[in-house]
Amino acid sequence: MDSAIHPSLRTVEWKDNSVIMIDQTKLPNELVYVKYTDFKDVAEAIRNLIVRGAPAIGVSGAFGLALAALQSKATDRDSLIHDMEEAKKILFETRPTAINLAWGLERIMNVARTAKTVSEIRDAVVREAKITAEEDIQINMRMGKNGSTLFDNNDTIMTHCNAGALATVAYGTALGVIRATRDSGKSIKVIATETRPVMQGSRLTAFELKHDGIDVSLIPDTAVGYSMANGLVSKVIVGADRILATGHVYNKIGTYQVALMAKQHGIPFYVAAPLSTFDMKSTPKDVVIEQRKSTEVTGVAGKKTAPDDIKVINPAFDMTPPELISGIITEAGVAKPPFEESIKKLFAKL
Amino acid sequence: MDSAIHPSLRTVEWKDNSVIMIDQTKLPNELVYVKYTDFKDVAEAIRNLIVRGAPAIGVSGAFGLALAALQSKATDRDSLIHDMEEAKKILFETRPTAINLAWGLERIMNVARTAKTVSEIRDAVVREAKITAEEDIQINMRMGKNGSTLFDNNDTIMTHCNAGALATVAYGTALGVIRATRDSGKSIKVIATETRPVMQGSRLTAFELKHDGIDVSLIPDTAVGYSMANGLVSKVIVGADRILATGHVYNKIGTYQVALMAKQHGIPFYVAAPLSTFDMKSTPKDVVIEQRKSTEVTGVAGKKTAPDDIKVINPAFDMTPPELISGIITEAGVAKPPFEESIKKLFAKL
Repeated sequence: MDSAIHPSLRTVEWKDNSVIMIDQTKLPNELVYVKYTDFKDVAEAIRNLIVRGAPAIGVSGAFGLALAALQSKATDRDSLIHDMEEAKKILFETRPTAINLAWGLERIMNVARTAKTVSEIRDAVVREAKITAEEDIQINMRMGKNGSTLFDNNDTIMTHCNAGALATVAYGTALGVIRATRDSGKSIKVIATETRPVMQGSRLTAFELKHDGIDVSLIPDTAVGYSMANGLVSKVIVGADRILATGHVYNKIGTYQVALMAKQHGIPFYVAAPLSTFDMKSTPKDVVIEQRKSTEVTGVAGKKTAPDDIKVINPAFDMTPPELISGIITEAGVAKPPFEESIKKLFAKL
Repeated sequence: MDSAIHPSLRTVEWKDNSVIMIDQTKLPNELVYVKYTDFKDVAEAIRNLIVRGAPAIGVSGAFGLALAALQSKATDRDSLIHDMEEAKKILFETRPTAINLAWGLERIMNVARTAKTVSEIRDAVVREAKITAEEDIQINMRMGKNGSTLFDNNDTIMTHCNAGALATVAYGTALGVIRATRDSGKSIKVIATETRPVMQGSRLTAFELKHDGIDVSLIPDTAVGYSMANGLVSKVIVGADRILATGHVYNKIGTYQVALMAKQHGIPFYVAAPLSTFDMKSTPKDVVIEQRKSTEVTGVAGKKTAPDDIKVINPAFDMTPPELISGIITEAGVAKPPFEESIKKLFAKL
């Protein structure tokens, strides 16, 4: 990536055998970087949303597993593989829904398994983790280019949650498409939903679009229907944490209702995600929706907003059915309905 | 009202020529009462959501105008009426969407205009304001009884915002129906949306239902679709700030999308509101949607959650079209579609 051309934020990076991340829990008030040399700290960082966003989690998992290979006291190949398998379990359990985490971890394990010695494994997994990160940026830029043709001059594009530079290594998926559309010379505006409970829309999307000089307005999640009913939205684009072969999209809680409102108002609804987000084996009943802790809902930034001991339902994701989706933008092209055929074709191109 | 039987919170009250209110901005952390003797303070309290909820605002406006009659230095009838008209304007401008405010103010003015002397006016308006408050409780209890027949044993009822005791003088509209359903011996549970940006769901609805021992779970506004798609919701009930003769319902921002999701999932969607909420003259294009200040969206309880100087769209209300509504519950009975006929019949009964 030419960072002079695309100076978007760098979310996660491998440097001098350590992992550097933006601490996203501190945004938008402070832009702070943290540094880890222990894979268990990376696991905690994923669990506590220091880093979040499916592609960024995939790369962070890969980096974490590379750290585990460096940390291991193993002196023979099999012991090192064993230690890495244990580390992989710990890393995987942090966020069960995003398929990219499993993908990133498996990619590192595959490289490790084909290497012959302890030092070959260590070299190979660090190299592979770094390639995974660089590929993420390249993939996002191809995805951006593919998606930008779907958007028109003067569009106002609604997005939910953060599928931006901060959800990836850099550039972003859904926000990468928005960046590419802007860079293609079209004038666009963005409406960002704040995305309760963790507020990645107001804290992250509003922050990074403003950082890049893109016109962005913030709305509460309750104002999606109002905005669409009053003609304020031309198109919607979101990211995804998992996409099935049938086109069922798992993404941040609230995506489903944005998609249904868009359908009601005849507004095209697009999903942008790399091929690593696709789970071609599972059906909707196989997918575990992560339930998160109640304190995310009962307070904001340490301020209590609900009575003590109130019961809470706090799913991290929901499922948007294929009939609400106008297109799925990937680095290999745009899949359109019927998705069962078009998604298969994207993979056939590889 | 027999407060031994219905010990719900008393939101607003006239006592010793002053107005006593629960300061709802302090909930759920503190239950604090404030006392006003100046109508301008009442206006500020309405504007700043110390008191909110359409029926409570209607009664607070009436109380405020009664205070203005006591405060006026006028020594003749016409000057007093003039001072009250000025006070009425100030009170009315605080919240333009809720029809009940105009209704409460007009009711007091009508009584003032028919009285002959300064002291007769003062006696009459204080008496009328107190009657308005007592009637609100009686109306809510009748509404509750009418609505309770629509709900079944073991229902889980979703509600949005706070149409409870805290939105009225006491007992509540939508939550009054829930109280009456529970009191009729049916076992019910409630799912309350947190209702960003001002969080009346988590701060008020969760608080007052827990206070009354009703089983309540809190969800972020983004989890409405998830909850319905996963079979967690049997019925929905909300309040209203204004209802047109055609059955168009203006209520807290986010109501429209809850209604659309309910329709999608075949879940009955009910509105509970007194006849004073109906505006039989306006059409949708006449209704002004109040836009509120951006700081409600850019922070929570004084904590900033968005970047500096971000643009915000923050409408207080949205419009739910009649085709999404299963029934409108009033003190005079339940209107069902087609609403143009059924609403007219409710008023014909008066």
